[in-house]
Amino acid sequence: MTSARNKPLRCKPRFRIMAGDVIALGPGKIDLLEAIQRQGSISQAAKEIKLSYKRAWDMVDTMNHCFKEPLVASSTGGKGGGGAQLTPLGNQMIDLYRSMESTAEKSTQADWNAIQRHLKQPPDS
Amino acid sequence: MTSARNKPLRCKPRFRIMAGDVIALGPGKIDLLEAIQRQGSISQAAKEIKLSYKRAWDMVDTMNHCFKEPLVASSTGGKGGGGAQLTPLGNQMIDLYRSMESTAEKSTQADWNAIQRHLKQPPDS
Repeated sequence: MTSARNKPLRCKPRFRIMAGDVIALGPGKIDLLEAIQRQGSISQAAKEIKLSYKRAWDMVDTMNHCFKEPLVASSTGGKGGGGAQLTPLGNQMIDLYRSMESTAEKSTQADWNAIQRHLKQPPDS
Repeated sequence: MTSARNKPLRCKPRFRIMAGDVIALGPGKIDLLEAIQRQGSISQAAKEIKLSYKRAWDMVDTMNHCFKEPLVASSTGGKGGGGAQLTPLGNQMIDLYRSMESTAEKSTQADWNAIQRHLKQPPDS
């Protein structure tokens, strides 16, 4: 019933966007942005995707500092540390990043088919 | 003088090929295959890319078991554990994997340009 079982052979493009030695955006940070979008809170987003609050906050801080404008706007204080929302730029970066993934997936389909022919089907369990 | 300094903002596509829960091929395994290609030995390849011999050997073992035919042929025994060469399939998988990377890079250039415009130039150090 897992997706791994439904699609035993998979090829997933992942993009790592570096600003100097810092990862400005990558799969983990995009997942976090999407969780903040859903939850409206960094602490709830962290809980949802199983990060510590500190780790999630550090990731948001890194993103906000790498971009010319913040991707996440948070209101501090209040119970649970206040709310957080994506800025228009945050929403736009999710869209562009996900678009890169799907474009990459489509454009590399022929190579992936050629690789896949040589892979064994993994055992079911 | 580092490449990070020469190209402070970068976007690198990385592909992870999964067979069930196992990573059949990914950036690390491809780097290892290329090192074996250069060195003609798993132990020398491990040294070159700073992996333990055991880790390198496990990675080769995983790849060889995920594919219908081995990617690496090794002759056991002898000083330093014998030599190792890529099979024709091993060479072919490197080519296809690197081709996927460069295709993905080209096809996502417009999205990456759009993201890049919003990134700060990182400090020089």
